[in-house]
Amino acid sequence: MPAKIDSLGNWRRTHYSKDIKPSEEGKEATVFGWVSGIRNQGGIVFIIITDKDGVAQITVHKNKISKEVLSRVESLSDHASIAVKGKIKAMDKAPNGAEIIPDGVKVLALPQKTPPFTLYAKTLPSIDKRFEIRAVDLRRPEALAIFRIREKALETIRGFLKDHGYYEVNTPKIIATATEGGAALFPLLYYDKEAFLTQSPQLFKEQLVMPFEKVFEIAPAYRAEQSRTLHHLSEFLSIDVEEAFVDYKDIMNTIEKMIAKLHASISKECNKELETLGTKVPSIEKIPRMTYDAILELLKGKDAQVEWGDDLTSELLDKIAEELPSYYFVIDWPTKSKPFYIKPSSNPEISESFDLMHGSLEIASGGTRLSSKKELINRLKEKGLKPKGFEYHLAVFDYGMPPHAGFGLGFERLLMVLTNQKNIREVSVFPRDQFRLTP
Amino acid sequence: MPAKIDSLGNWRRTHYSKDIKPSEEGKEATVFGWVSGIRNQGGIVFIIITDKDGVAQITVHKNKISKEVLSRVESLSDHASIAVKGKIKAMDKAPNGAEIIPDGVKVLALPQKTPPFTLYAKTLPSIDKRFEIRAVDLRRPEALAIFRIREKALETIRGFLKDHGYYEVNTPKIIATATEGGAALFPLLYYDKEAFLTQSPQLFKEQLVMPFEKVFEIAPAYRAEQSRTLHHLSEFLSIDVEEAFVDYKDIMNTIEKMIAKLHASISKECNKELETLGTKVPSIEKIPRMTYDAILELLKGKDAQVEWGDDLTSELLDKIAEELPSYYFVIDWPTKSKPFYIKPSSNPEISESFDLMHGSLEIASGGTRLSSKKELINRLKEKGLKPKGFEYHLAVFDYGMPPHAGFGLGFERLLMVLTNQKNIREVSVFPRDQFRLTP
Repeated sequence: MPAKIDSLGNWRRTHYSKDIKPSEEGKEATVFGWVSGIRNQGGIVFIIITDKDGVAQITVHKNKISKEVLSRVESLSDHASIAVKGKIKAMDKAPNGAEIIPDGVKVLALPQKTPPFTLYAKTLPSIDKRFEIRAVDLRRPEALAIFRIREKALETIRGFLKDHGYYEVNTPKIIATATEGGAALFPLLYYDKEAFLTQSPQLFKEQLVMPFEKVFEIAPAYRAEQSRTLHHLSEFLSIDVEEAFVDYKDIMNTIEKMIAKLHASISKECNKELETLGTKVPSIEKIPRMTYDAILELLKGKDAQVEWGDDLTSELLDKIAEELPSYYFVIDWPTKSKPFYIKPSSNPEISESFDLMHGSLEIASGGTRLSSKKELINRLKEKGLKPKGFEYHLAVFDYGMPPHAGFGLGFERLLMVLTNQKNIREVSVFPRDQFRLTP
Repeated sequence: MPAKIDSLGNWRRTHYSKDIKPSEEGKEATVFGWVSGIRNQGGIVFIIITDKDGVAQITVHKNKISKEVLSRVESLSDHASIAVKGKIKAMDKAPNGAEIIPDGVKVLALPQKTPPFTLYAKTLPSIDKRFEIRAVDLRRPEALAIFRIREKALETIRGFLKDHGYYEVNTPKIIATATEGGAALFPLLYYDKEAFLTQSPQLFKEQLVMPFEKVFEIAPAYRAEQSRTLHHLSEFLSIDVEEAFVDYKDIMNTIEKMIAKLHASISKECNKELETLGTKVPSIEKIPRMTYDAILELLKGKDAQVEWGDDLTSELLDKIAEELPSYYFVIDWPTKSKPFYIKPSSNPEISESFDLMHGSLEIASGGTRLSSKKELINRLKEKGLKPKGFEYHLAVFDYGMPPHAGFGLGFERLLMVLTNQKNIREVSVFPRDQFRLTP
């Protein structure tokens, strides 16, 4: 006989798990959650339920409860969703020091299948296997810890930027022209026209310093990366900042303060989650700034084959990470290796630019931007791009574009650092890559 | 001779416009901004600059200033970006009661063209004309007021949801299958596969109540609407909420509280902006709930041709708005007019659903969701959709999906209400519609 599923009816929560505590002793409580543990010990069944804030213990004394409630309790397995009405009782050994002695139980959902992993398993099936039922996979304590940290990190960054006077904007993700050339873009059919998904809100945020002066956006961005690495996603959350009347050094100061604040906040407020993940978030004060030239010297000292003007390949970055395992800026890149909107310095071969790195992982990049239309057109041509394709962008430069600078940061990369994850897919609820378009 | 553009050099802001006040009298200040007014009055030039927080007055006494500074001042026109170093002086008639007497001026950007509208114009060119240089258009006080309200509204909603224990998530905007059928979707090429832009995070947010219980997302959503109306965008900001262990009535209560909080907060904190827009935001306490049947009665009383089961067309909505000009819920819709995931009530013809309206404008819709896989499959088939296309979604329902309910809200529609705008394009920085893909 299939077990009965109860309807919610007029039962409503009175307590979250965190509110089941000794000071509530004797009170009536209605709690909801999903079963994350059942232990049958002689005449007693201990049920652990998990809700959004944590866990609570339901203690069922078999001989003190109605047959009806008991039959419901006996139908339960891990992942079942239940509602429990009962009395709160102080109990040292229970989570938060109290348990619930139930009078009534509703079974609101029962699993029909058993997941191919248990919640507390030390070894797990492959990520592809787990991600087929990602919503269930996310019930593992490690996954919950990652996403609590994710939310806190986003909250801290947004709070930091707002406190520093940046204005939150939302720009389109559908564009007519490729921002930095046509590579790695997803094409789409926009009514009867060809369009693309944005790789970055670069041009929009630059324009928006005209009315708003200091702007930020936290929104998805898209890269049709052809490589399947552990640190690329096809859709990622991009944190973009742009500001008038400053240069790239001011922007690096802002990033430094933001990272310091972020580490302090996660370390303080996500203690339990970091413990679950077996990691720590160190305090950060200063982030060293290494010129591109100094990085080349460092690499030559390690017998690497590299010429001035070369990009830093992943092999080279691995070598650098041996010496610089935490955060560092690589500054003053060759102009030719940076996008057209980056401003060359007084030496035109070198640009006012930076990448923020953590070991071998690129976290952010930014720089001073060109604010002269004429210079922008020259740089576009040097890059082999057609100014015509950027006419809607260039148009506003006729009306007085202030000097400005900014950065773009890959939020999931930063989260890999904070949560100590090797695979970027673990820090995204439903990651997208070259081979994964579901769930 | 073209006027000289100065470089930023080592000048950095010491004061924002709001900090130029009598209590700062005598202090040295460096301010930045763009020129939003110049008045030449005999021996004195009054320059008004706008920065992100407001305006400041620079008062230039021509006979007390170097030729070099004077030549810079004389090169200025509206929209020029400048830096000013000088002394703060109390002055009753100046904004915030103080002005700056400059010692030095840098000209950081000069407009090469004159916009086809002035900042304080009562009549404006067509929206299409203005939007060709939208970043400049956004410098108009009305536009700035709209976007200050936009930011505050978003902050208030996010704060409300966080305070009520909802967990912020980010779900993919690229999907393999149409959520509610194939209509009005933008197709894209995802590597070598066909994919679509999401119309809503519906299926994702439902899945995420399994691990997170109460979730929200604020992110772009896409509709390939074939109509050019004043209240449709192809890309809009969708506020999505989903919650386990509640039904649609609980969700309406949450929306009601959220709208009440939003109106209170905008009315209180955006006083100046509302004044600029010549509008007010009334206090909201209760939002009436009208059944679909009652709405039909109301329409019949107004001689409208409408049968049970009909959708409410824009003509019908206009008639309803005559009686209900503010917020109201239309509840208990015919099941057949709602998507497959909406739960039918005890009378299967009627669903546990609602739309939140404001006059004739649909702001949000929501309902109790089906949590049984079997019923979902039946409803998919009734809707002529193939369960196979939803297998990745249906898979997690095998592992115990709790009862849940939620809503999706079109943020720009809500902003039209708050800012009293007739055209939804005015509340989006860079709107996208059938005919507009730039800037």
